[in-house]
Amino acid sequence: MDPDALAKAFVEHYYSTFDTNRGGLANLYQEGSMLTFEGQKIQGASNIVAKLTSLPFQQCHHTISTVDCQPSGVNAGMLVFVSGNLQLVGEQHTLKFSQMFHLIPTPQGSYYVLNDIFRLNYA
Amino acid sequence: MDPDALAKAFVEHYYSTFDTNRGGLANLYQEGSMLTFEGQKIQGASNIVAKLTSLPFQQCHHTISTVDCQPSGVNAGMLVFVSGNLQLVGEQHTLKFSQMFHLIPTPQGSYYVLNDIFRLNYA
Repeated sequence: MDPDALAKAFVEHYYSTFDTNRGGLANLYQEGSMLTFEGQKIQGASNIVAKLTSLPFQQCHHTISTVDCQPSGVNAGMLVFVSGNLQLVGEQHTLKFSQMFHLIPTPQGSYYVLNDIFRLNYA
Repeated sequence: MDPDALAKAFVEHYYSTFDTNRGGLANLYQEGSMLTFEGQKIQGASNIVAKLTSLPFQQCHHTISTVDCQPSGVNAGMLVFVSGNLQLVGEQHTLKFSQMFHLIPTPQGSYYVLNDIFRLNYA
């Protein structure tokens, strides 16, 4: 699979897991992973998933607008840059967001997230 | 200097160079550098600067809203994620953008841009 297709497949998997089984994101992070969520830095898979599962909304739906990807120069890693919309159940307006992932291949042939930076795009 | 301060200093340098002497950005890229600009992939310092200097506006001013940074896990590299506004001279409205940089230290003690992904945040 070419890198762009891999990046897109990862992104679709990530947000569908986020929207349907947020705790399942634990499989995509490792202990060395870092998330910066709206400026807050969180280290390690368990802390990251604790943060994501404690966000002040239960149900949401991500829609992806763009996915860009480049090789990161480290161990066949990939940088993936996403823009999209986040719809919270019960809210009328969607929130626009940008997010980047640094993906590192695993010995099992998939990828884990080493770096993750998330920002809402405020108007 | 701590990583956050380094990232902020780089970002201020980058956009002030962009706004006052766009051709000077050539010093911040190398031949292995890659830019993805609104989905278009461009490789190498000279091609990247040719793209940036041929954008369909002459004068502009970037205002930075947020800067997030994480170690990238490669050779003391840093991932820097920026959100901000781009004001074009003669245009009433500003354009919101998000951009990420992967910075790699140089032997001279500064950084160059290995990866650069830019997206306007369309409403």
